[in-house]
Amino acid sequence: VDEKDEGFIKETLEGVNPADISALLHEFDTEDSKYVIDLLPSETRAEIINDLDEDIRERFLKVFQPNEITEIVNHLDSDDAVDILNELPIKEREEVIASLDNEEKEANILDLLRYEEDVAGGLMAKELIKANVNWSVVQCIEEIRRQAENVQKLYSVYVVDDNDRLLGRVSLKRIILAGDKTQIADIYEPELISVETYMSEEEVAQVMRKYDLEAVPVVNMQGKLLGRITIDDVVDVITEQAEEERQIMSGISGDVEEDDSVWMLTKARLPWLVIGVVGGFISAMLIGVFEDELLRITAIAFFIPLIQATGGNVGIQSSSIVVQSLANPSAFSDSLAKRLVKVFMVAALNGAVLAVLVYGGNVISGGSQNLAVVVSIALFGVVLIASFMGTITPLILNKFGFNPALASGPFITTTNDLLGLAIYFYTVHLML
Amino acid sequence: VDEKDEGFIKETLEGVNPADISALLHEFDTEDSKYVIDLLPSETRAEIINDLDEDIRERFLKVFQPNEITEIVNHLDSDDAVDILNELPIKEREEVIASLDNEEKEANILDLLRYEEDVAGGLMAKELIKANVNWSVVQCIEEIRRQAENVQKLYSVYVVDDNDRLLGRVSLKRIILAGDKTQIADIYEPELISVETYMSEEEVAQVMRKYDLEAVPVVNMQGKLLGRITIDDVVDVITEQAEEERQIMSGISGDVEEDDSVWMLTKARLPWLVIGVVGGFISAMLIGVFEDELLRITAIAFFIPLIQATGGNVGIQSSSIVVQSLANPSAFSDSLAKRLVKVFMVAALNGAVLAVLVYGGNVISGGSQNLAVVVSIALFGVVLIASFMGTITPLILNKFGFNPALASGPFITTTNDLLGLAIYFYTVHLML
Repeated sequence: VDEKDEGFIKETLEGVNPADISALLHEFDTEDSKYVIDLLPSETRAEIINDLDEDIRERFLKVFQPNEITEIVNHLDSDDAVDILNELPIKEREEVIASLDNEEKEANILDLLRYEEDVAGGLMAKELIKANVNWSVVQCIEEIRRQAENVQKLYSVYVVDDNDRLLGRVSLKRIILAGDKTQIADIYEPELISVETYMSEEEVAQVMRKYDLEAVPVVNMQGKLLGRITIDDVVDVITEQAEEERQIMSGISGDVEEDDSVWMLTKARLPWLVIGVVGGFISAMLIGVFEDELLRITAIAFFIPLIQATGGNVGIQSSSIVVQSLANPSAFSDSLAKRLVKVFMVAALNGAVLAVLVYGGNVISGGSQNLAVVVSIALFGVVLIASFMGTITPLILNKFGFNPALASGPFITTTNDLLGLAIYFYTVHLML
Repeated sequence: VDEKDEGFIKETLEGVNPADISALLHEFDTEDSKYVIDLLPSETRAEIINDLDEDIRERFLKVFQPNEITEIVNHLDSDDAVDILNELPIKEREEVIASLDNEEKEANILDLLRYEEDVAGGLMAKELIKANVNWSVVQCIEEIRRQAENVQKLYSVYVVDDNDRLLGRVSLKRIILAGDKTQIADIYEPELISVETYMSEEEVAQVMRKYDLEAVPVVNMQGKLLGRITIDDVVDVITEQAEEERQIMSGISGDVEEDDSVWMLTKARLPWLVIGVVGGFISAMLIGVFEDELLRITAIAFFIPLIQATGGNVGIQSSSIVVQSLANPSAFSDSLAKRLVKVFMVAALNGAVLAVLVYGGNVISGGSQNLAVVVSIALFGVVLIASFMGTITPLILNKFGFNPALASGPFITTTNDLLGLAIYFYTVHLML
């Protein structure tokens, strides 16, 4: 690239899949990348831009002229085009839209810009092939021919009535196998799963996973066919969801990656750390209350980490299991009471094993007998309470509309640390 | 169901999507479910069985006769059939295979049984439509007609040479648009992404996501076309992967769900809890070493939870960011040295903010000035070390072929707890 060897670059990249080129471009700075991209055919260029990570793309698009962006947008499906337009400054966006020469595309894009990015309306593409129920197969093939350039991935043709209301679908396989004179009305499948524009992307993903769909039509509240969502967009949704949940679990707020700036990374991490520190302060005050006990028997302090670590681990395990069954409602058969009984039994079993273990360890290491008993009893109590808290917190969060995965992170650790400590010192206070 | 009102059940379930029926059956015990299932058409029955959770299905299949299972298997794609056969006792499995009357299906199933479940060979279905490159479009449509019953989801036709080696594909759209006399050789796309039988399911998922594929052909090492993997199976792989990672992160081993038995749940949770307890014991011994300091200044004990919580939180955050960029290699541009410098800067910034906060808190609450200084310095050190450990651990695990997500769980918490404590007490020892 440094030597600007045009011929060589062109030759090398010819026939290479756009997804591979864009993986390569991640390592370039924007100016070199722009140079390479400009050498490529415009269709490949559009695909590469479409493939980039959102934040990289936003930076990258700054070096493009509006007319260059128009060219890119012309090559993309309406849903991807809208994603890119949403990243542009408003003035540039208007410029690009105004300069689109394909009127249908312009109308589609204006229509999609209305929807939030995270609902079905924002995920859908307007490009699809629909056939009137009164058509014949020949008319339908005519329509496929007319639309073929616009629609990249074609799974099936949607069948609508005169008012554009969705009636069903007919697969390409059936169209191929049918005779030319067959009526669409005779071969379409009326049973069809669709989603409405306002459904959240998570719900759309759930529907498509449940019914193993490769594409799902989007309708408005009157049942009118507006667009379709393809499985590749939903795979992205599922992956992002998993990533987001992992971040929440590890106490990172906001969508950061290792290559973000130091400042962004710090900002994403500080909030939960501060909460942890505040929890630590409250712990300090709590221990302060029992200073007399500490002065009397210093060895009490030895077991603070043991109690806290167990409380935190048990809490996270419990909440994680509940979060999982909330995400996968089919496992939802038992009543709350039954579930709590089960949680209690598991906790009692775990707690008993750990308590015996710790007691044994204390006896072997030759510490005070009395303290050993107290630590084991407290530990048992901590396991019970932490299990209960870990189970109930995500259920409550879910009830009030928060993401239950919040309960798997530092939040549950901090509260359980505190609770565990309180139980421990109170037991000490009572028994020693 | 209790009233055995056959007519009513049949009528109600007619036209209901199989996925909905199976969601319903989760709440039945196996005998009632069997009764309902027997009333359904055999194709629906096969789909429902196919949809069930693995562990539920294994239990459920016990009440079926081998000839009933044969009937189910006859209705399924070869990959799903093999999944079910793998759940049967070996004797019953042989019985079912022997009683299959479709020879092609039998050969397909026997072929697939060879592969592990978690490689491309185990995910693929043998059902696909292939066309010889020398055929015309008419011959190809003939073949589609012949195979149409076997292949449920048809995205494109794979093109092979005389030795069955994969050459490319031709989409149904193109077949529809081409004239009858067109040769396949003229319209197929030679550029094609395929996977080999031995590739892991994670790699397959990555390929399909990267190139936005709805189906990918599977070839052997000679390039011979053996089967294809469809996106719906890969969506399941991605979802399972995310679930597994979440379990590892929350310190649960093995694939358990809330509706598993008390014993299973306990077994999955105990190992990490024991590790936590062992860590707690080592902490106790460590604190014991500094008993003299504790006797001199009891207030040292107050800040044990603060130090530990911060160490644990910082460690998990750091490792989680690294695990994420390991899973998504495109973000991998910087060298190790550069990454560590960045980690150090983020840690220094976070650590400084927290140290100031804690110092301020200590001054306001009127504790000892000297201790406040020591706690803040120790906290700063803990943030630095925990960041470093959190970053380096998943990298090392990854290097030696372990799942780096292991580093986001109780493992990193336990080690950081210990390290933090050591740093704290050593600082106290030096400065007070």
